[in-house]
Amino acid sequence: MKSQLKGGKIGRLVFHYTPLSFIYRMSQFWTSLYRKYAARSDSGFEEMDNSGYSTGSFDGLHRPSDDDDDDLVDIAGATLDFSSTDDDPPLSSGCYEEYSANSRAAGMNGNGPSKLVDPLEDPVPGLGTYEDFNTIDWVREKSKDRDRHREITNKSRQSTMALLHSVSDAFSGWLLMLLVGLMSGALAGGIDIAAHWLTDMKDGICVVGFWFNHEHCCWTSNETTFQERDRCPQWKSWGELITGTSEGAFAYIVNYLMYIFWALLFSFLAVALVRAFAPYACGSGIPEIKTILSGFIIRGYLGKWTLIIKTITLVLAVSSGLSLGKEGPLVHVACCCANILCHLFTKYRKNEAKRREVLSAAAAVGVSVAFGAPIGGVLFSLEEVSYYFPLKTLWRSFFAALVAAFTLRSINPFGNSRLVLFYVEFHAPWHLVELAPFILLGIFGGLWGALFIKANIAWCRRRKSTRLGHYPVIEVLVVAALTAVVAYPNSYTRMSGAELISELFNDCSLLDSSQLCGYKQPANTSETGVGNSLADRPAGEGLYTALWQLALALIFKMLITVITFGMKVPSGLFIPSMAVGAIAGRLLGVGMEQLAYYNHDELIFKGWCSPGADCITPGLYAMVGAAACLGGVTRMTVSLVVIMFELTGGLEYIVPLMAATMTSKWVADAFGREGIYEAHIRLNGYPFLEPKEEFAHSSLAVDVMRPRRSDPALAVLTQEGMTVGEVEALVESTHYSGFPVVVSQESQRLVGFVLRRDLLISIDNARKRQEGVVSASQVFFTDHAPAQAADAPSPLRLRGIMDLSPFTVTDHTPMDITVDIFRKLGLRQCLVTHNGRLLGIITKKDILKHMAQMANRDPDSILFN
Amino acid sequence: MKSQLKGGKIGRLVFHYTPLSFIYRMSQFWTSLYRKYAARSDSGFEEMDNSGYSTGSFDGLHRPSDDDDDDLVDIAGATLDFSSTDDDPPLSSGCYEEYSANSRAAGMNGNGPSKLVDPLEDPVPGLGTYEDFNTIDWVREKSKDRDRHREITNKSRQSTMALLHSVSDAFSGWLLMLLVGLMSGALAGGIDIAAHWLTDMKDGICVVGFWFNHEHCCWTSNETTFQERDRCPQWKSWGELITGTSEGAFAYIVNYLMYIFWALLFSFLAVALVRAFAPYACGSGIPEIKTILSGFIIRGYLGKWTLIIKTITLVLAVSSGLSLGKEGPLVHVACCCANILCHLFTKYRKNEAKRREVLSAAAAVGVSVAFGAPIGGVLFSLEEVSYYFPLKTLWRSFFAALVAAFTLRSINPFGNSRLVLFYVEFHAPWHLVELAPFILLGIFGGLWGALFIKANIAWCRRRKSTRLGHYPVIEVLVVAALTAVVAYPNSYTRMSGAELISELFNDCSLLDSSQLCGYKQPANTSETGVGNSLADRPAGEGLYTALWQLALALIFKMLITVITFGMKVPSGLFIPSMAVGAIAGRLLGVGMEQLAYYNHDELIFKGWCSPGADCITPGLYAMVGAAACLGGVTRMTVSLVVIMFELTGGLEYIVPLMAATMTSKWVADAFGREGIYEAHIRLNGYPFLEPKEEFAHSSLAVDVMRPRRSDPALAVLTQEGMTVGEVEALVESTHYSGFPVVVSQESQRLVGFVLRRDLLISIDNARKRQEGVVSASQVFFTDHAPAQAADAPSPLRLRGIMDLSPFTVTDHTPMDITVDIFRKLGLRQCLVTHNGRLLGIITKKDILKHMAQMANRDPDSILFN
Repeated sequence: MKSQLKGGKIGRLVFHYTPLSFIYRMSQFWTSLYRKYAARSDSGFEEMDNSGYSTGSFDGLHRPSDDDDDDLVDIAGATLDFSSTDDDPPLSSGCYEEYSANSRAAGMNGNGPSKLVDPLEDPVPGLGTYEDFNTIDWVREKSKDRDRHREITNKSRQSTMALLHSVSDAFSGWLLMLLVGLMSGALAGGIDIAAHWLTDMKDGICVVGFWFNHEHCCWTSNETTFQERDRCPQWKSWGELITGTSEGAFAYIVNYLMYIFWALLFSFLAVALVRAFAPYACGSGIPEIKTILSGFIIRGYLGKWTLIIKTITLVLAVSSGLSLGKEGPLVHVACCCANILCHLFTKYRKNEAKRREVLSAAAAVGVSVAFGAPIGGVLFSLEEVSYYFPLKTLWRSFFAALVAAFTLRSINPFGNSRLVLFYVEFHAPWHLVELAPFILLGIFGGLWGALFIKANIAWCRRRKSTRLGHYPVIEVLVVAALTAVVAYPNSYTRMSGAELISELFNDCSLLDSSQLCGYKQPANTSETGVGNSLADRPAGEGLYTALWQLALALIFKMLITVITFGMKVPSGLFIPSMAVGAIAGRLLGVGMEQLAYYNHDELIFKGWCSPGADCITPGLYAMVGAAACLGGVTRMTVSLVVIMFELTGGLEYIVPLMAATMTSKWVADAFGREGIYEAHIRLNGYPFLEPKEEFAHSSLAVDVMRPRRSDPALAVLTQEGMTVGEVEALVESTHYSGFPVVVSQESQRLVGFVLRRDLLISIDNARKRQEGVVSASQVFFTDHAPAQAADAPSPLRLRGIMDLSPFTVTDHTPMDITVDIFRKLGLRQCLVTHNGRLLGIITKKDILKHMAQMANRDPDSILFN
Repeated sequence: MKSQLKGGKIGRLVFHYTPLSFIYRMSQFWTSLYRKYAARSDSGFEEMDNSGYSTGSFDGLHRPSDDDDDDLVDIAGATLDFSSTDDDPPLSSGCYEEYSANSRAAGMNGNGPSKLVDPLEDPVPGLGTYEDFNTIDWVREKSKDRDRHREITNKSRQSTMALLHSVSDAFSGWLLMLLVGLMSGALAGGIDIAAHWLTDMKDGICVVGFWFNHEHCCWTSNETTFQERDRCPQWKSWGELITGTSEGAFAYIVNYLMYIFWALLFSFLAVALVRAFAPYACGSGIPEIKTILSGFIIRGYLGKWTLIIKTITLVLAVSSGLSLGKEGPLVHVACCCANILCHLFTKYRKNEAKRREVLSAAAAVGVSVAFGAPIGGVLFSLEEVSYYFPLKTLWRSFFAALVAAFTLRSINPFGNSRLVLFYVEFHAPWHLVELAPFILLGIFGGLWGALFIKANIAWCRRRKSTRLGHYPVIEVLVVAALTAVVAYPNSYTRMSGAELISELFNDCSLLDSSQLCGYKQPANTSETGVGNSLADRPAGEGLYTALWQLALALIFKMLITVITFGMKVPSGLFIPSMAVGAIAGRLLGVGMEQLAYYNHDELIFKGWCSPGADCITPGLYAMVGAAACLGGVTRMTVSLVVIMFELTGGLEYIVPLMAATMTSKWVADAFGREGIYEAHIRLNGYPFLEPKEEFAHSSLAVDVMRPRRSDPALAVLTQEGMTVGEVEALVESTHYSGFPVVVSQESQRLVGFVLRRDLLISIDNARKRQEGVVSASQVFFTDHAPAQAADAPSPLRLRGIMDLSPFTVTDHTPMDITVDIFRKLGLRQCLVTHNGRLLGIITKKDILKHMAQMANRDPDSILFN
């Protein structure tokens, strides 16, 4: 394959777009979007997202061959399993069973090779493309891109036009990054504004114009005092509007009911839209994006419909008051933007590996707009999401993340010109003694993280295996109702997660009116000093009430998040996790503060916490707690600390954050090394080869390869001597997606590797176009046609589609090395030899199955290859 | 080899230290340090650093075999070349010709295999270790570590003691990081304090106590006014001390002469110490560290003598006033610390791959203490220095970098409690129009970077090829004298580089007394507003003088840095590059400021730069210029921006920095894609396979492999049928460092690969220990001994030392893929097959030679393998 890529066929297929012509592509894109929508209205929605990856001329090719044949190993058995047990379908991350079932059903029919090629198309189209739910070959893709690049560079010496083309090709990556940043930033700004407005809608409405949110509505008000700013006459709560008064039990009940009504309405709309239009839009999307970045293909997962529906339903889901955040889904949204914008540039449209570089950067963009932390975003992408992260991507990711952050800031959805989601400014340094409570918070975070993962996975498994999974809409409505009913009476659960965290992070000054700052005013001002408005004070009534409510909120959040995450609405995990941690941290912080206030003469507080000093900052505890819990759930490390550092902007507080994050990771790892995303990847059986975990067993390649000792011998082609009919028969009788080519059956000396898909397409094409190719024709993979009788039908040369450089390992290669090779090179399969003879084959799926077996899990849980 | 590692031999060699026992190791270490020093006093200093990598029992083994034989390819020809042309010795980064010549001469003698094994040692010692100037096999090292880890994990289930050992083994990495951070931070603090003191010594002395620097001396003084603080009576300039008065031409001349005297003394001491004790201590060290991290072994480069001498001479070199910085050498110092501390832990002492993980982290530590920028340091290590950077290292690097930064801060060498080297606080935002000058600065930086690299490389080549290189001491003295003579009259060149940059970055307030802030005071205070002390003002006399001096300083710095970098003293490039950029930036900034002041009604300034507004910040321009020039020279991107961001602490100024850095990189890349470090690596012919650059040619593996078509066939061993004598004869007659093992000479079917070193050691060992092994004995690599006559001497089984999983590619594999495999897996060699038959071998050196050939360079410039 590679040697041929250098030559003509693929070269002819590739026609290049300069960035200058992207406006043309864009118009094309919107036109096609419209056409597709129009067509869809007729054909129903079930195939909606199939064209996310492939546009235009390849569509015709992909659809009929959308079957399981392309898998390297026989997954027919597994497919049968799926058909018999409908609770465990492929790729069911819990939200698109119907969709996958449909596509599978469609794939079962019409896999006859005669339907594979449209005779009106280019000579051999589809060579070098991939099926849905298949693993890409990174080496081949990168080699393709290098060939393309080399061609452009060589041409650029010939003419000025070609030179310009080469320059614009080099800069197209940067242009794409700019566009991704702008689009994601704009979308994030829109989502923020819309979510803010809808969230306020649950409380009441602006009588001046219903499109104003609470804050905007009151900007025009005359009541400008600090306390009263939120209670302007233009803003009417539903109770006030209906009952005429804002006081009294009746108004409260009306407000309560309206709150539940809106919550149910929003969540119903969200789940209905997801189910009807874009099943892939549910969840946080990060497990799937990790899988896609590792080289898997899920068509439509990053398509335009997913983008549109996810954007809308994310707003609805966040506004409904469910215990979920928008940070994870924003990563998905940014990746959708990147994937769609990739279609404007040939370089990225045609190459799965290059596209994944862009998606890596998009993940950074997502976190950058979610938190306003561009550096943290880049590190998040590097640490948590990406699989192949060349250094070139680092710089581009950073650029895109910055563009997005500044786009978001110029939209200014929070109205405060801040780049960051939670702006925090602490005034007091921390003391070494405080490391003890910080580490305690780390332990809490780790325990909660481990527990949450176990509980959530158990619940998701239950959803898949019982009838619960059949009623996603009802499930969402019940959880939304439950959340609304319980949350409304408690002001800390009633407010949105981001607001809650923001309030918990806040450092109390004397002027603060919130309940959390309900300290007793110092009786004697001279005692504390006039200037020090932040000195520690004894807790007052308000604070005790707040603590009580917070404790209840903590329990509620901990329970409800477990059943919320994984429902069929877009749901992020960052904000709920951080909320749990922030509540715990704030509780501990206030406790420490009071302890220090009343025991300032004790040994441990002596010297640094004298009366009137501002020695304990409960807001810092909340922040550390939030980091610890988020770390426990996701197992992020550096990126988490850097995100938090970007929120405060001071290196000062990195040490507490680091201590807590580190403790949290160690504690959580003691209960299981998987973070929530890895756990969900495993739950859904994606073919994801974890790049971080070491392969800990001492198996050899021979233990993992197929065929096993009891199996029939490996199906191989010989480089000459087989007829077209024999080859077709061999292909028909097996389900392998590739065949090694050997010198002869006796010697088993390896020549190359042919993909099933390429073989079928080529034979079919030859039968139609090439004179005299019939079933009796000889197939040969050598350079020159073998000698044959004069009256024999004309032979078919297939050397062009053979990969002349298949990867091989020996049978004695330890599996840890083999796994390393698969990970680092991104292989799809690897041939196993013994003393120069071909012995077997190892695919990515074989490795995953072996690893599952070693960990005493069901190896058949790995569904795709 | 790998299969054997699982088993006994290596396992028995490895005995583990827990972190708990590191105190014992430490005492051992200091004792051995003393002993070594004592031994050295007798034997002379030329072999001083040979034991940097290997301690204890392996020394006896390494020394006699310290020859060229271990290279995979025959470098005898190249060696002859070296002997005939003494201007181009191996590994001469311009400063250790004599050393390498000595070690080479030593290596020429006594390479008879009979001397290889010390019979009193462990059965087969030295298996799996490396020679000096050789490339490590990453796959083998990592596999070894995994085996070790697996063994510990398995044992940990058996007893509580083993469990404790397993836990302490897991945490030893963290303990090591802590120690590296503490040690590097402490050393950096010491260097800062000493350099500060010695630098002030050039001006004068504190009469209260000579150990006080200028600032400390005046702390006790009563003159506490701002202007007079630096002129306290306790501090006497040399002129004042000798002539009795601080005024007048005579005192100036005495000061001038004393300045030159001290500069010469310090630089002489520096170069003399480097030459006498640690030739590896010269230069910045970053090119060599990059090479070491890519898997090369340079014994002693990170040894204790290098550390001690580099630390002392760095202080001297910085104080001598030469145009060099301490940032690069600090990275080297941190890496030395890490390497030395690695000896405390078996896990790291015995494994070259694991040690390189620690060194990666140490590079981050170095930058962290140099700039006070831990996040930037980690990114620097990731982007610029490291080769293999597993994600685990990221988190540990960050931890170590933080520890080091806080250690440095608690030492507080600058006396200002700041973590960062240049603390900057800007008050005015920047305007979009200003992007134009920022991009101009980027272009300047790029041009200067490209020019500097070309000029410096040309100069270094000249130094190697002419008689100049024979007089390093005189060269340093001449340059130091030149620098001192020219620098003294101009106050901006007289001050140290860091002080200069600090002053240039500074934002002028009304109170600033420095010449750079010599603006005309506003005539009418009401015009500018009382509060706005930072408003733009017209330039005054002082500023014009300053600009004039700065322009001269710019030219001087640009010229002198070219000849300074590469001399035989520790010399960093960060500060001089930044100084050039900062001067250029400040000049442009002041120009812009005056332009805006006098043309505030013009179109481009209208609206944002009204009179009395603080619209242009010259300090920001200086900062952007510094980033641009540093970017042009080193081609750093993200890490540079992040380091600068950490200096200011505000995301606000990232965009200008990014614009300038990006432009600078693009402009510089247009003249040549290599940064200064890569250029020096190439100059010195290190075997470094650049991980960033794409392999741009379309060669195939068959074009690169040896033997070439005209060469004799590949030297192979057969798995049975050869006698010990035949094997020895084959090994003797070639210089290859490894031999493939095949089934038979006819079939050429590959079985495994044996390293020359292992082969010689094993045969020698067998002859001495094993009954009946003589020259006529059969050697076999199969599982079972072949049938032979009853009276034949007992056969020798060598399967144990054979690597049963050698890497293979086919002859048709494109070289871009092969290079990728080498880079990603860290291979040392790869075998080439055709249709299952062994055809040839490709080593890292073959690839580098091929790349040099393709780029029309001399392929023989690659010296080592």
